[in-house]
Amino acid sequence: MSSTNLIVVNQSEIETFLREGRLAKLERLIAPCRLVSGDIASSSDWETLLREANPEIIVGGWSVPPLPENAMTELAPALRYLCYLPGSVRHLVSREQIEAGLLVTNWGNSISRTISECALLLTLSCMRRVTYWAHEMHDKGQWKVHDTETLSLFDRRVGLHGFGAIAKALVPLLKPFTSRISAYTDGMPDEVYEEYGVTKANNLKELFANNDVIIEVEALTPSRHKVIDEALLRSIPEGGVFINVARGALVDEEALVRVVKSTELQVGLDVFASEPLAENHPLRGCRNVTLLPHISGPTTDRRCDAADYAMENLKRYLNGEPVVAPISCEVFDRST
Amino acid sequence: MSSTNLIVVNQSEIETFLREGRLAKLERLIAPCRLVSGDIASSSDWETLLREANPEIIVGGWSVPPLPENAMTELAPALRYLCYLPGSVRHLVSREQIEAGLLVTNWGNSISRTISECALLLTLSCMRRVTYWAHEMHDKGQWKVHDTETLSLFDRRVGLHGFGAIAKALVPLLKPFTSRISAYTDGMPDEVYEEYGVTKANNLKELFANNDVIIEVEALTPSRHKVIDEALLRSIPEGGVFINVARGALVDEEALVRVVKSTELQVGLDVFASEPLAENHPLRGCRNVTLLPHISGPTTDRRCDAADYAMENLKRYLNGEPVVAPISCEVFDRST
Repeated sequence: MSSTNLIVVNQSEIETFLREGRLAKLERLIAPCRLVSGDIASSSDWETLLREANPEIIVGGWSVPPLPENAMTELAPALRYLCYLPGSVRHLVSREQIEAGLLVTNWGNSISRTISECALLLTLSCMRRVTYWAHEMHDKGQWKVHDTETLSLFDRRVGLHGFGAIAKALVPLLKPFTSRISAYTDGMPDEVYEEYGVTKANNLKELFANNDVIIEVEALTPSRHKVIDEALLRSIPEGGVFINVARGALVDEEALVRVVKSTELQVGLDVFASEPLAENHPLRGCRNVTLLPHISGPTTDRRCDAADYAMENLKRYLNGEPVVAPISCEVFDRST
Repeated sequence: MSSTNLIVVNQSEIETFLREGRLAKLERLIAPCRLVSGDIASSSDWETLLREANPEIIVGGWSVPPLPENAMTELAPALRYLCYLPGSVRHLVSREQIEAGLLVTNWGNSISRTISECALLLTLSCMRRVTYWAHEMHDKGQWKVHDTETLSLFDRRVGLHGFGAIAKALVPLLKPFTSRISAYTDGMPDEVYEEYGVTKANNLKELFANNDVIIEVEALTPSRHKVIDEALLRSIPEGGVFINVARGALVDEEALVRVVKSTELQVGLDVFASEPLAENHPLRGCRNVTLLPHISGPTTDRRCDAADYAMENLKRYLNGEPVVAPISCEVFDRST
């Protein structure tokens, strides 16, 4: 039974993820393949396509439709690998399909450096109060007054909650400003902190109380749900900064709102307990909070990094080598 | 005739510039001296004080009153050195007093790193459109839509107009993001660019047309008045960024307004042709412009750098060595 691989991307995905010759490179890499450009009209069109092509590999962008439950058993028995160019696959595949042996990858750590860039941006924004000034300057016709406090990152103590790929990409961005970086996560060998020139904190309490800037870059697990509580937030020293580019559910958001409204804590958030952020959410309008709509992941111009990363994984797959960061059932369960 | 040096600072200046033991250190350094804490009530009080103390050295913060024209000739014939902790001295001394031999210094290059930090902040803000999102998220209850373009600094071409102390402090902040940095200024030896790993641009036209991010860090001289014209601004490649942390008068601001209103150029400004920025200035409300009210200089927490720098200069003066960056008549004439 013949098999034709599928590349399912729309025009905008071709122009961003697959720009500058990457589409042709991908087509050569997984030939024979069929490019399905543009959004697929209906689920029956998608089922027909899967049946006709019977792909071993599907490479997809945001426009790829969910895999039907019978994709591997009936429609496309050759299917082995869903190479998804963006991030979340929860809506695309089921736990059962992964258990049944479907290999699934996404943009993995290729987006870590843009997330770390966003963490630095939010940190500097909070310290100079860019969101406050945006409102004062654009909406209120104001200018500075002498007692407005602004802060610099130079020589500041920075505490990272989490020490995965994003934290490791963040350290070199922070180093030109300060060497006083510490981090806390569970079960990381001491050598890893040492390798990055970072001091190990023994627990969250110590991390929060002893740093001027706290940056959330930790992975969300069930035990970390709302682990950042009101007491921790209030323990950040006066003049402090709290940044979250990880997951909103790490933080007790109601407590965060109380702290934001009752202190001068400067807060930078790209992620929220529930997204999209409710139109009337109490964080909106708080000018000591810089708000971004979950855009810390790859900027438009760096989506190509995700495609390059996908192509490396495709090469590994085609050479019979293990791919980097396959989405296991465990990863699937805790993903959002 | 006896002479007692003066330290003229108010409480807020003591708590910022002279925090953490710096006041005591300064008092020991220039003893015998008198601390005049708090704003001086009237110009006759100031004249009386100068006459009584007849200081050789005055160390002053923003609260020091202007030197009367007869300060050196009649009131305080011992006066030799005005060591001003902040920046602009135009309102404090006259050209004639400098010509007559008064040594004047200010915070000099001690503030360069905080200005470079602000330049990086404005660059990252423009690329992620923080000002746009501040408005959408805080005032309009919005969330992201798929076609909002955001950009990363990674691997981008950055062009610096100017290659003085601020540019030199900026290069190490940019290097973790990109090695594609070029710079243009008049008469800088090629070796200086090489030392910093920066490519020399041959002229402004080349600098603007060949970079994604343009950052103004050039000193203002009469020949550079409005040197950044509409043609240069329009020559920045599509998706580009223009930052000014130097002086507003370098730019034809009316042209900048036209470009901002008719293109997608992302602009970050800390300085303006006329400051404070007029309440109804046409840049206000343009959400592709991040506006700051001339705060790129030392943040509140880094004013102590200026005091440390001043004390180094005072030591040099007391040892009979040349001070760093005295304000000559030429520097005075072109200062703002």
